Amino acid sequence: MTVDLRSVCKMLAQNDNVVIFTHKKPDGDTLGSAFGLMWMLQDMGKRARVVSADGVPGKYDILCKGYDHGANPDWKPSFAVAVDAASLELLGSGPEEAYPSGMLDLCIDHHKSNTMYAKNTYLDVSAPAVCQIIHDLAPELGVKITKRIADALYLGLATDTGCFRYASTTAKSHAAAAALIEAGADHALINKLMFDTRSRGLLMVERLLGESVTFYYGDRCAIAVLPADVTTKYGVSDEDLDGVASFTARIEGVLAGVTVRAKPDDTFRVSVRSMSPVDSSVICQRFGGGGHINAAGCTMSGDLYAVVGDILAAVESEFTRNGIL
Amino acid sequence: MTVDLRSVCKMLAQNDNVVIFTHKKPDGDTLGSAFGLMWMLQDMGKRARVVSADGVPGKYDILCKGYDHGANPDWKPSFAVAVDAASLELLGSGPEEAYPSGMLDLCIDHHKSNTMYAKNTYLDVSAPAVCQIIHDLAPELGVKITKRIADALYLGLATDTGCFRYASTTAKSHAAAAALIEAGADHALINKLMFDTRSRGLLMVERLLGESVTFYYGDRCAIAVLPADVTTKYGVSDEDLDGVASFTARIEGVLAGVTVRAKPDDTFRVSVRSMSPVDSSVICQRFGGGGHINAAGCTMSGDLYAVVGDILAAVESEFTRNGIL
Repeated sequence: MTVDLRSVCKMLAQNDNVVIFTHKKPDGDTLGSAFGLMWMLQDMGKRARVVSADGVPGKYDILCKGYDHGANPDWKPSFAVAVDAASLELLGSGPEEAYPSGMLDLCIDHHKSNTMYAKNTYLDVSAPAVCQIIHDLAPELGVKITKRIADALYLGLATDTGCFRYASTTAKSHAAAAALIEAGADHALINKLMFDTRSRGLLMVERLLGESVTFYYGDRCAIAVLPADVTTKYGVSDEDLDGVASFTARIEGVLAGVTVRAKPDDTFRVSVRSMSPVDSSVICQRFGGGGHINAAGCTMSGDLYAVVGDILAAVESEFTRNGIL
Repeated sequence: MTVDLRSVCKMLAQNDNVVIFTHKKPDGDTLGSAFGLMWMLQDMGKRARVVSADGVPGKYDILCKGYDHGANPDWKPSFAVAVDAASLELLGSGPEEAYPSGMLDLCIDHHKSNTMYAKNTYLDVSAPAVCQIIHDLAPELGVKITKRIADALYLGLATDTGCFRYASTTAKSHAAAAALIEAGADHALINKLMFDTRSRGLLMVERLLGESVTFYYGDRCAIAVLPADVTTKYGVSDEDLDGVASFTARIEGVLAGVTVRAKPDDTFRVSVRSMSPVDSSVICQRFGGGGHINAAGCTMSGDLYAVVGDILAAVESEFTRNGIL
């Protein structure tokens, strides 16, 4: 069932041994929320631990300074919370091992798609980051925002809002950022770590994208192609590649940007990013995919030139529907 | 002389015909400050006008919706304000024509290097954007922040802070952003216009940078070279090229990123971006240039390979000085 913020705080206040789960392939928001909440509960004198099925990537080392990742085998959590995870599957293998007693007690999330898998769910789809919700808990729990809490919550807030650039950012997000910086968040360092560094592998991928980009329909559609071996050759992850899917769409004048990536199984992963009113999901639905108006994807198979031809036809039809052609 | 915020507001309140000057080659902060202040003064029932020696680049069209750029030849301003301009030279040719009576009455600025050229100067070097200062004026002037004021001030605040990414951003900047979004600033549109679009010319330049980048000293130094014809061939400006000077330094593990750009006069413009403690200005001072610890530049001449060799020697010596080699 869904609960309000006050009930969330009441539950947390009543439980002294809390395990907090992040989603698998963890990002800044799920980790920032988990560590921020954990430090808050520890400051209240409770025992709390973070479990991430896929560990904590090195990029987020700043979040777990002073945290001992090894579990005390004698410790038995009595309350389990999931943060930023829309479904039980997204938690990975964490829960069975760390919380054998079964169903999660509480989920704090901002995804519309939340499956309500926990006993209690606090859902705020207006929050661009779960860290913003965790920040809301502090006054209700009577916890002071210390520097380590501020660092964790700022990191998640900044990463899930694209450093306050995305449309999902609200006045409340900026107000939270102001409070977290006041409380000592090292925003300069965190922004540098999160936004100012890209791997050499990703540099090579962007070089390939730049070399392969081709323009169509009066330069309003741009298509770039990546070979199947980019992940192994340059040591980049699928998440890294999701991050560069906007490369073509960011070019001036482009209304539909398409990235076609060959996969080892001879299929193609197609990512579409578009400017409204051009609807990426309409383009991808033709090929059994889906997504949102500005970002969608699909998987296609066949010859590369046939695939590009089919996508171009779908883009053309979407442009025509919107009176662009 | 320097004045406080209250005196600034008193002067503005007492004058009913105000001309506001931006600096030449105007950016988002000088334009946002000028238009934001102009709309504020107009809402107070005054006549106010913005003068930009180099006009308003198309990118900033959103700032001057509904503004008539033609001056009424009969109107004589009685008070002149410069915003975000550290010296009289930076105003360009604007003042002589628009304000023949001479010395500027007021300068509102955040540059440490301000030459105190105006009769009165309000200087706040802690403000990452002059728009943040203009926002501070509103309550003192008794002006409501309308949507067009909010758009102007948000635009300048966002551009001068790199969308709240730069270290200069403060808690107060975020608090101002929160208030401006509350007041109706279209942050999503402004962020898209300012940060999410790059020209095809710049795309080509980044492709060239990616192709030419070479690594030295265990990949801790990266050097990229641009030919002399980039500005004419790809229609990019010197400012655009300043913006991509961080391309090499943003690669993971790089402590000193160097961009060498051939100039039509057979010299080379060298831009250095570094991570502390590596000091870019120490490197550039060797060749008669200068700048800050993380960003500096110099002009060099001779053969390209000799130039790169000389820079590498300077980088090596700076690395050695910091115990990196």
